[in-house]
Amino acid sequence: MKKGLKIVTIGGGSSYTPELVEGFIKRHHELPIKELWLVDIEEGKEKLEIVGAMAQRMVKAAGIECEVYLTLDRQKALKDADFVTTQLRVGHMEARIKDEMIPMKYGLIGQETNGAGGMLKAFRTIPVILEIVEEMKLFCPKAWLINFTNPAGMVTEAVLRYGMWEKVIGLCNVPIVAIKNESALLEKKESDLFFKFAGINHLHWHKIYQHDGQNITRQAINKLYGPDAKPEKIVANIKNMRFLHEQLTQLEMLPCPYHRYYYMTDAMIQEEIEEAQGEGTRGQVVKRLEESLFELYKDPNLDHKPVELEKRGGAYYSDAACEIINSIYNNKGTQMVVSTRNQGAISDLPAESAIEITSVITAHGAEPIHFGSFPPAQRGLLQLMKSMEELTIEAAVTGDYGTALQAFISNPLVQSGDSAKALLDELLDAHREYLPQFNR
Amino acid sequence: MKKGLKIVTIGGGSSYTPELVEGFIKRHHELPIKELWLVDIEEGKEKLEIVGAMAQRMVKAAGIECEVYLTLDRQKALKDADFVTTQLRVGHMEARIKDEMIPMKYGLIGQETNGAGGMLKAFRTIPVILEIVEEMKLFCPKAWLINFTNPAGMVTEAVLRYGMWEKVIGLCNVPIVAIKNESALLEKKESDLFFKFAGINHLHWHKIYQHDGQNITRQAINKLYGPDAKPEKIVANIKNMRFLHEQLTQLEMLPCPYHRYYYMTDAMIQEEIEEAQGEGTRGQVVKRLEESLFELYKDPNLDHKPVELEKRGGAYYSDAACEIINSIYNNKGTQMVVSTRNQGAISDLPAESAIEITSVITAHGAEPIHFGSFPPAQRGLLQLMKSMEELTIEAAVTGDYGTALQAFISNPLVQSGDSAKALLDELLDAHREYLPQFNR
Amino acid sequence: MKKGLKIVTIGGGSSYTPELVEGFIKRHHELPIKELWLVDIEEGKEKLEIVGAMAQRMVKAAGIECEVYLTLDRQKALKDADFVTTQLRVGHMEARIKDEMIPMKYGLIGQETNGAGGMLKAFRTIPVILEIVEEMKLFCPKAWLINFTNPAGMVTEAVLRYGMWEKVIGLCNVPIVAIKNESALLEKKESDLFFKFAGINHLHWHKIYQHDGQNITRQAINKLYGPDAKPEKIVANIKNMRFLHEQLTQLEMLPCPYHRYYYMTDAMIQEEIEEAQGEGTRGQVVKRLEESLFELYKDPNLDHKPVELEKRGGAYYSDAACEIINSIYNNKGTQMVVSTRNQGAISDLPAESAIEITSVITAHGAEPIHFGSFPPAQRGLLQLMKSMEELTIEAAVTGDYGTALQAFISNPLVQSGDSAKALLDELLDAHREYLPQFNR
Amino acid sequence: MKKGLKIVTIGGGSSYTPELVEGFIKRHHELPIKELWLVDIEEGKEKLEIVGAMAQRMVKAAGIECEVYLTLDRQKALKDADFVTTQLRVGHMEARIKDEMIPMKYGLIGQETNGAGGMLKAFRTIPVILEIVEEMKLFCPKAWLINFTNPAGMVTEAVLRYGMWEKVIGLCNVPIVAIKNESALLEKKESDLFFKFAGINHLHWHKIYQHDGQNITRQAINKLYGPDAKPEKIVANIKNMRFLHEQLTQLEMLPCPYHRYYYMTDAMIQEEIEEAQGEGTRGQVVKRLEESLFELYKDPNLDHKPVELEKRGGAYYSDAACEIINSIYNNKGTQMVVSTRNQGAISDLPAESAIEITSVITAHGAEPIHFGSFPPAQRGLLQLMKSMEELTIEAAVTGDYGTALQAFISNPLVQSGDSAKALLDELLDAHREYLPQFNR
Repeated sequence: MKKGLKIVTIGGGSSYTPELVEGFIKRHHELPIKELWLVDIEEGKEKLEIVGAMAQRMVKAAGIECEVYLTLDRQKALKDADFVTTQLRVGHMEARIKDEMIPMKYGLIGQETNGAGGMLKAFRTIPVILEIVEEMKLFCPKAWLINFTNPAGMVTEAVLRYGMWEKVIGLCNVPIVAIKNESALLEKKESDLFFKFAGINHLHWHKIYQHDGQNITRQAINKLYGPDAKPEKIVANIKNMRFLHEQLTQLEMLPCPYHRYYYMTDAMIQEEIEEAQGEGTRGQVVKRLEESLFELYKDPNLDHKPVELEKRGGAYYSDAACEIINSIYNNKGTQMVVSTRNQGAISDLPAESAIEITSVITAHGAEPIHFGSFPPAQRGLLQLMKSMEELTIEAAVTGDYGTALQAFISNPLVQSGDSAKALLDELLDAHREYLPQFNR
Repeated sequence: MKKGLKIVTIGGGSSYTPELVEGFIKRHHELPIKELWLVDIEEGKEKLEIVGAMAQRMVKAAGIECEVYLTLDRQKALKDADFVTTQLRVGHMEARIKDEMIPMKYGLIGQETNGAGGMLKAFRTIPVILEIVEEMKLFCPKAWLINFTNPAGMVTEAVLRYGMWEKVIGLCNVPIVAIKNESALLEKKESDLFFKFAGINHLHWHKIYQHDGQNITRQAINKLYGPDAKPEKIVANIKNMRFLHEQLTQLEMLPCPYHRYYYMTDAMIQEEIEEAQGEGTRGQVVKRLEESLFELYKDPNLDHKPVELEKRGGAYYSDAACEIINSIYNNKGTQMVVSTRNQGAISDLPAESAIEITSVITAHGAEPIHFGSFPPAQRGLLQLMKSMEELTIEAAVTGDYGTALQAFISNPLVQSGDSAKALLDELLDAHREYLPQFNR
Repeated sequence: MKKGLKIVTIGGGSSYTPELVEGFIKRHHELPIKELWLVDIEEGKEKLEIVGAMAQRMVKAAGIECEVYLTLDRQKALKDADFVTTQLRVGHMEARIKDEMIPMKYGLIGQETNGAGGMLKAFRTIPVILEIVEEMKLFCPKAWLINFTNPAGMVTEAVLRYGMWEKVIGLCNVPIVAIKNESALLEKKESDLFFKFAGINHLHWHKIYQHDGQNITRQAINKLYGPDAKPEKIVANIKNMRFLHEQLTQLEMLPCPYHRYYYMTDAMIQEEIEEAQGEGTRGQVVKRLEESLFELYKDPNLDHKPVELEKRGGAYYSDAACEIINSIYNNKGTQMVVSTRNQGAISDLPAESAIEITSVITAHGAEPIHFGSFPPAQRGLLQLMKSMEELTIEAAVTGDYGTALQAFISNPLVQSGDSAKALLDELLDAHREYLPQFNR
Repeated sequence: MKKGLKIVTIGGGSSYTPELVEGFIKRHHELPIKELWLVDIEEGKEKLEIVGAMAQRMVKAAGIECEVYLTLDRQKALKDADFVTTQLRVGHMEARIKDEMIPMKYGLIGQETNGAGGMLKAFRTIPVILEIVEEMKLFCPKAWLINFTNPAGMVTEAVLRYGMWEKVIGLCNVPIVAIKNESALLEKKESDLFFKFAGINHLHWHKIYQHDGQNITRQAINKLYGPDAKPEKIVANIKNMRFLHEQLTQLEMLPCPYHRYYYMTDAMIQEEIEEAQGEGTRGQVVKRLEESLFELYKDPNLDHKPVELEKRGGAYYSDAACEIINSIYNNKGTQMVVSTRNQGAISDLPAESAIEITSVITAHGAEPIHFGSFPPAQRGLLQLMKSMEELTIEAAVTGDYGTALQAFISNPLVQSGDSAKALLDELLDAHREYLPQFNR
């Protein structure tokens, strides 16, 4: 095994980068990274320089042997890479804000990864990721792609199905946050509980088992959502609204925070509209947050990740990416919840699909812990959403209008008929610049 | 094979009965029915007597050897039956009207077999059908059950899964009407085309093949829903609203009329509200229609099916039931679209499910023509709806509130969260009398 | 639909041709064939001329408007064909005799479609059929391929998987003979019974249902193989050896005659060896039969199919091919047992496999009547044999030695280890001339 | 979590017990066993006393707080147990020797877990294990059953399917030995390689991945079975015969040692016959080995596991059982290859089957690392063997003769037809005393 690893981070100018760098630093004794390449595009040059300089300070302060390179030349960066991470945002925060605002005009949820907004993000992002994959085939055919660009599940599936690239793992922080919060709530150490997650990105369920093998999911449901429950701490970017207790009792599994969009649609839209009228949409809030983060990063004396980064919503994300790389490199067998190919691990979904599932990360990549099949309440929604994802990915790749329309109609957070068509048309038009495939 | 068949029709006082009798008369040369038992309950006694007398006149006029019996004693009727048909309505037309009116208050579709109304109908009907199945086990264990009580698909699945009764076929006239209309539209004889249907009751798709093996579904889509299409003739009980042409082109299959509830939800609700404010809900219209039919049936000189019956919405239904019986009895191999057990004929749905599919009716019952799997646009909705059906059936059998709530939330025609709960509570209360399982 | 059909029969010089011609003649009122092209290769020229002249006499005697063409130019024949039938034998009867004799030296079964012989036949035949398919793509892309060349199941699967040609139906006379014999034995009309077959070519099972829907398979088992059973009449080319009654009772299905090779291997080998020492192998017997048939065909006064043809072993084959063509052309919905793509009709086998199953023949081709899954006793053998078929087909296409060896080891009628390798080597060598793919 | 664990070992008089005790001793710091109950039956009393006394000496020498109880009262032992291990042998070594000798008379393999012998062992063992499960339901309903009684896969499946007991894990040392030997051969640390096993007990395949994610299975095949390979070290109880290199190259997986019975049947039988004529059958050898082990155990000064035990053939078995218990108790996530319920982890086998697969052992038991589907060469044999197992288990439970016969005929190591029947009859007769279910 070669001694010094080369890591390439595409979208290196992201505000997340310091967490990633911190993650690499703290694992340096077992993960000997020699080169870290931060890559961005022309429009992101300024941010890349700010955050890149900070990364260089962090590495220097840590006193480890590792060079941080900044570049706009992606192909040069990819040459002989061992691991490539992607954390890019096509169209920047402005595109996100459109994804949030336009559906809201139609009385619909506007959100980065769910509903019409998530689909448009997929339309913009998937072609760029597939382009990167083609370059990886040429410049670093043995590298692993660790993606944490949203919509992470659809991106992973696109890489598998259309990119024909097997060495990919998709990553999301939602399960990590759930494990941390629920362990605390149950007053247990994380390592004493076994969490079994399965589903797709932003639409998964999980069960919890205790030390002696007992399934304690129902107790967790009662603690979290029962009559005496205290408000749950969840990921920063979605509202904490109490689930119906009778519904969760029937599910006998814990949903993910994003289930609120499907299980309490009306209340979520109303909340979102109020929020947009108050502090602004989540995109607008994050934009402000990022601006202040970059102000911090400019400080030439700052050489460690600032605590403010945790408010950004993606806490643990980058650290998890480091741990995946570490676990592959050292065949550690760490249990993590990641997006990977189904192959039948969830019997209810097509074998070629990407799913999000508790996996063991080995030298061979993500090995899903087998799940089997869901009861009907979970199954139907999951299958519907996967079919919506398939249509969305196909539309993103082909630019076919009918397929995009079908994807919209399939999405329970979008309406059907003429109103679906009007919304699709407006969104395609608003993002025209980033959707060449639809304008051919 | 015994010479004279005994047929039992439960809900014999229905306005459909004359079509059934006509169907038996015209097949008498190959289907030697000796006894036809029309069974109803106390509240239906008057209607049973009116329509029963008319049935007796019809048989007499036809000059065939067959006795028509009228009875309120179901068990006596079932004794040694060869075929049992069910066409009952628990709670009568009043219950249907509630199913239509209450959801409308919540801005939702109120319909006999779709949305909240269809689920309540299932809650009322399934326990009664399962009671009949238990009696069949005792009194006529070799008989076939031909069900055309709605929701026909869920009833069939309940009989298979919970009644543990294999000899059941569910029947609906929607595919029959489609075959007739589309053949006419394409200017072909029915026998020159091969129609391949698959899905579930009131949610199926089909393809059409021509004489030389060519798939002409796309031509049919264009003729029916293309820019120059003339308004399509569909089943009487749902509005004819034009599907989006781009959507159907992507589907490459023809949807069923009820797909309008899912593919153009808003427009359908608006239409329905207008209609309710005009001539009344469909239930109210049908109630008036039925009253005038029974006036006709009272005429002691009427001894044949009156043409007015066709407006009733269930045209061809009863005739199809006769043909199923005929095709089983004579191992004819007639192709019909029926509800039967999946066993893998549609790979996307559980093996134990009831599906609606083009089948060959043989001595062994309905043998589905294998379908395989759907593309994602059809697949997701179909799988969601099947999971909703499973939950609905389970709730109907167990009376479990959480399961009923989950069924509601799973249904795309019902909202989620608190509003789903409020609607469910109101409906359970309105139908309390017919839902003993929920009041235990 | 065009008025006059063009049929092309590849291997037209076969002794079966008169039955085919007879079949077309008797269906001429509904199947308007205008041109019948009999195609053969240089080595078969003489036979083609003899049987071709006879075909011309038959058509003339029948007084129908149809031209019979004889040619060695396959591509010319294929031009604009509507249906292509294949009944060829690569390497002629000499190759068959080698397939029979060589395995016998190793104490193994030597047979045309089972064991090592059948695999070698697949190695020789599949590349030729795939060549024909490529020509069909160019010269008659809308035609149907009706294959009755053995091994018919593997050939069909090769056409589907490697030829990427969907319009293919494989045909075998074994089920036809079983239906005829068992109906007679049960003293019923064929049309009064429903036979449900499923499996793969030469390895299928069936159930029988009676007029009133009752499963009478067990009665049939007792009549055929019970203590008082009279020897069963089966297809001419395999020995009639009594199955173990206890075994069939457990199966609750009727096996096909070829199951004897698997269910009573030792006895069959012994029988075969004795037979070879007596009248010669089946190939040798058939060779003599064919020679005397061709003597008959030379008679310029013979203008109808001679009764001697029925001894040939393929009785009903060609007639069934005519009926398939007729049923496609006229969308008749005839029930026939054919080889077609699985797509899930038998849940135990891969979706892309060819299976042999009761199907409805429509304008769209063979529509399998759904079967579902087998109990373990049938399932395991069926799955093993399908995997052996997959390996054999792959070896036939790629010429890969390891795959061929694996196919041999997978076959329960071949031994494993060094003896499998020795047998394979000897057979590849003996047929070297017809196996260019293995010599690259 | 309660402080002191109670472990019950059924078949406690086995010669393996010292390894088990050693395993518990060395894990005592994390696995606080307070009571170890060794249970045996009347006939095993003497051995129980010998080995039990030794176990007591070992515990005492280790200075840990743990009581070792010896008893013939199984129900008393089971009361409130936390873990139950089973290592029993119905009919003792004499029965094994019959299982080896009788098939050999028919020219067939005589072996403890494969072929006719393995099936008879299943017939004798399964009813006893199911009896234990029924007692566990009464006396220790929360306990885990760790089975290492052969045939371990069929026993596990019987417990799951017929015992309706989910908390069971089956264990075998074959994969452990393979991992150890192959790591050494490849000159790697075990922890640097990822071994992915899947299949069923004594019929599994595996792949090996290296540190950097590369699949090195082919290198391992070449090292083990290539032209320059040195003889491989395998489990003690089966002969080391070189696999065909071309075959393994095609498989692209490593087989298990028992595959020799299927991949080189003739050579194995010949070897076995020679061996039987020399030192005796494996059962006879083991019997002598055991006798000398018990002589050693009698030594009142012996208080640790003697090295001679490793020759016994079950090396690592008992230690692995300790590690499973440890990993469940401490939610350790250790990767082990165990028999557990499939649920779709191997797509080619029924969901309810027991499979043997690399799993993560957690608080929730064995969580299989998902495998997916096999290529045809592995798939067919695996499916055949699983169907044989299903039939064998069913016959063991029901005592149905036809099912037993079908199981025999399905087994590729048994012949078919009359000879299968004769062998079955002789074996049923020889073991009559232990097969009450067949004599009802």
